Amino acid sequence: MPVPEFPEGTVPRELADARASIDNLDAALLHLLAERFKITRRVGELKAAKGLPPADPDREDAQIARLRSLASESGLDPEFAEKFLTFIVREVVRHHEQIAGNAAHQA
Amino acid sequence: MPVPEFPEGTVPRELADARASIDNLDAALLHLLAERFKITRRVGELKAAKGLPPADPDREDAQIARLRSLASESGLDPEFAEKFLTFIVREVVRHHEQIAGNAAHQA
Repeated sequence: MPVPEFPEGTVPRELADARASIDNLDAALLHLLAERFKITRRVGELKAAKGLPPADPDREDAQIARLRSLASESGLDPEFAEKFLTFIVREVVRHHEQIAGNAAHQA
Repeated sequence: MPVPEFPEGTVPRELADARASIDNLDAALLHLLAERFKITRRVGELKAAKGLPPADPDREDAQIARLRSLASESGLDPEFAEKFLTFIVREVVRHHEQIAGNAAHQA
């Protein structure tokens, strides 16, 4: 689905091409994120079942170090990579807390 | 690179498997983001060259609507998809402002 904004024919060709690539990458990112949350949801259920806390600072520190290193290799700002992981983990912890809350209600 | 946190052999197998998949997906996400920022950097240069403003609310509204719809189809929370795009676009606008600032300094 194209996302027009300039009147037809007035978007510079190079900008239109770039936006089409961005839209393709965004769809890919979204589908990978959907897959990632499917997995973290299972992790949340496992943690709730075993009584482990939703957040895990040591694991997060190791993930941050790894992603900063991968970012440097890919020409991405390591600061941004860290902010990105923090953003995702915040959402994951929110899911885990919901799962733990649901489990508590069922107990 | 694995990211251990429990003493060796004490992480439940299912959790270790899930974490390995998460690490794979995170590497893929990071590389797609690196590619996305390469493209938006080119867009920023194009916009600066043509004197277009860095942010573009109409385009962003259309992107948000598209990603919310894709999220619903993929079992992802549309609210999260919107927050994700906002998070990325904030970084892109920061890059564009840097590019515009550099161009102004060179003028």
